[in-house]
Amino acid sequence: MITAEIITIGDELLIGQVIDTNSAWIGEQLSLAGIAVKQITSISDNREAILKTFTEASQRADVILITGGLGPTKDDITKTTLCEYFNCGYRFHEDVYEHLKVIFARFGRTVSDINRKQADLPEKCIKLHNANGTAPGMWFNENGKVFISMPGVPYEMKGLMTDEVLPRLKDMYKTNAIFHKTILTIGVGESYLSEIMEDWEKALPPNMKLAYLPSPGHVRLRISGTGTELLQLKTEVEAQAAKLKPLISNHIFGYETDTLPQIIGRLLLDRKQTLSTAESCTGGNISAQIVCVPGSSAYFLGGVISYSNEAKKAQLGVKIKTINKFGAVSSETVIEMAMGTLKRFKTNYSIAISGIAGPDGGTPDKPVGTVWVAISDKKGGVISQKFMIGGNNRERNIQVATLFALNMLRKRIIEE
Amino acid sequence: MITAEIITIGDELLIGQVIDTNSAWIGEQLSLAGIAVKQITSISDNREAILKTFTEASQRADVILITGGLGPTKDDITKTTLCEYFNCGYRFHEDVYEHLKVIFARFGRTVSDINRKQADLPEKCIKLHNANGTAPGMWFNENGKVFISMPGVPYEMKGLMTDEVLPRLKDMYKTNAIFHKTILTIGVGESYLSEIMEDWEKALPPNMKLAYLPSPGHVRLRISGTGTELLQLKTEVEAQAAKLKPLISNHIFGYETDTLPQIIGRLLLDRKQTLSTAESCTGGNISAQIVCVPGSSAYFLGGVISYSNEAKKAQLGVKIKTINKFGAVSSETVIEMAMGTLKRFKTNYSIAISGIAGPDGGTPDKPVGTVWVAISDKKGGVISQKFMIGGNNRERNIQVATLFALNMLRKRIIEE
Repeated sequence: MITAEIITIGDELLIGQVIDTNSAWIGEQLSLAGIAVKQITSISDNREAILKTFTEASQRADVILITGGLGPTKDDITKTTLCEYFNCGYRFHEDVYEHLKVIFARFGRTVSDINRKQADLPEKCIKLHNANGTAPGMWFNENGKVFISMPGVPYEMKGLMTDEVLPRLKDMYKTNAIFHKTILTIGVGESYLSEIMEDWEKALPPNMKLAYLPSPGHVRLRISGTGTELLQLKTEVEAQAAKLKPLISNHIFGYETDTLPQIIGRLLLDRKQTLSTAESCTGGNISAQIVCVPGSSAYFLGGVISYSNEAKKAQLGVKIKTINKFGAVSSETVIEMAMGTLKRFKTNYSIAISGIAGPDGGTPDKPVGTVWVAISDKKGGVISQKFMIGGNNRERNIQVATLFALNMLRKRIIEE
Repeated sequence: MITAEIITIGDELLIGQVIDTNSAWIGEQLSLAGIAVKQITSISDNREAILKTFTEASQRADVILITGGLGPTKDDITKTTLCEYFNCGYRFHEDVYEHLKVIFARFGRTVSDINRKQADLPEKCIKLHNANGTAPGMWFNENGKVFISMPGVPYEMKGLMTDEVLPRLKDMYKTNAIFHKTILTIGVGESYLSEIMEDWEKALPPNMKLAYLPSPGHVRLRISGTGTELLQLKTEVEAQAAKLKPLISNHIFGYETDTLPQIIGRLLLDRKQTLSTAESCTGGNISAQIVCVPGSSAYFLGGVISYSNEAKKAQLGVKIKTINKFGAVSSETVIEMAMGTLKRFKTNYSIAISGIAGPDGGTPDKPVGTVWVAISDKKGGVISQKFMIGGNNRERNIQVATLFALNMLRKRIIEE
């Protein structure tokens, strides 16, 4: 099996100012491509440390992926050190310079001398186009070892990995056929799922492995199969997924890289229906998630963030009597919020949410993490549901409340 | 200077199932204690890899901190491998066994044979009490090198570091003082800053280093100094920061771990003022960021997401004539949005935003990334500003537009 190591360069990683999220993402992508990551190493912007780490990594792995240290400033020395390691000079790349000009022109600026140097690349490397930034990626292939250098900015690195690095690696190495099927579940924990799935998991053939990938509020289940023939393998993995489905169908919300806002967007587009929102505890996070999907303006008309009780009354027509009697976090209040929004935005659906995000504000009756959601529709129907999220981490509670509300909306649209 | 390396052990780190957040936290704590972290290494639960990494780390560093691989199951082999590395057997710790009994009793369970083994520790180690879990920490001191092994569960590791490891390290080594000062800038790039700051940077004394830490839309500048006396050092670093300030004061929005929503929250609380929002292209992201701050209900009353033109008209009173003549992304439209919101929510300030998030929808006149922001205030004042973000990554454009809008709001509140 082809082996890889990841090297992340930057003082900020060692003193804990930045958490290295790049390595996990790269590790997952390589693993999905059938390449085994053996080690991740973080080192400082220090010449000796970089050279020594390059040498050691190349003794253990076939492919060495490097991020960081490609900025135009003095403290970034990855490129210089790569020249030294591969014993070569620089070559000026006219096309990189043109790309720099375009990027700077967007800001009404010209390319400074410092930035012009970003078009100088080691002679021995192949340039990898960085569509999202000014520092190009670099690909070295010497003595049977591949070195790949990328910027540390996550979205620049991800663009380079997806468009340039992974296709080249797949092209270069004859890796075993690998097929992954990812099933997305929501609202139940890893251990609950593993009990339901125990017999199915035990009966998996030896060329398939199951991974539980938990995140706040949801668990991704990934079946990974290896074999010699991709189409055959795909059929086998899909057959196992089909066996699993009836056991957990109530908890599945999607597959692969789907997100709830994307799924909801497709459902609404198909049905030519529209949506509006009324948010209290999530403060706009539900609508922000919906709007993240390109083209969402076709079905999302808008919403109200009614953070104060006064706003619930004035903007959505919630009765003060209702809030006083049942509280701002109650079935009655979210139902009135949802109905008020539907009326104002004239949409097919409206979703309303109110809860206690914490860390303070909980009561014995309604502890932190208590959330009420209501969905109202044009035909006059309205449903409400309570969720108990638990834990008093405010950010996590908002995140999970958003997911649960979106999933309730997904189910409601399908049921219609 | 005392040097350290961190080794995190676990297959899940290499295939991207878990992001290694432990290393950043440990790195920060050591750095604050005056110990320099030279390398972070993540490896799999593999005997050979662990032994080799121990040997290499001990050749480079004085202190080696290890997390992970201490669970009771078969795949966790850190303890066995430590015995092998230090060439010693096990000793049973009665007090650890008593601690296990207490923990299991809480769940109404007795200690199983598998779990009883957690009381067996390598003969050559000092036991470190793990108040939050079943696997004790271990401290080895052999041939002038210290090895520390801790569980990978973050809150268990943090408890051990705080209560056991850091006090022992500070006690054992006479460490150099280290002081970091982080300055947060927004709206200008790394290379632009480095040009303005060139002379100042060159004149930094040899015991200080500058790092540029860029993220979408903003750059953090970190000055790190080392010395013998912390108070003296702090004064020196602050003096350098004070020299830098006038050069870039227009771009500074905060210090250390501040965020714009936190800064705005403090400003509004101090002034007993309130805020409302009207969002189009950001779809609720500005208000979601504001609401992430605990206690934001004291100054944030709510907002409107007017994603469609109809919503801009019906919910905020924007004139259709204005939208038709100037477009939804224009100074005129955002001004009417801001004024409409202020009137509806009766707040001291309202902020409105409209832009083209992309990836589609741009025109030669108004390319993707064009964003208009307006801020209206109770006294009748209103300002608007155009931002050209560039790039057609929708998520990034929304993120950067949110930052720029929040920074404009911060400046406006201060100016008053």
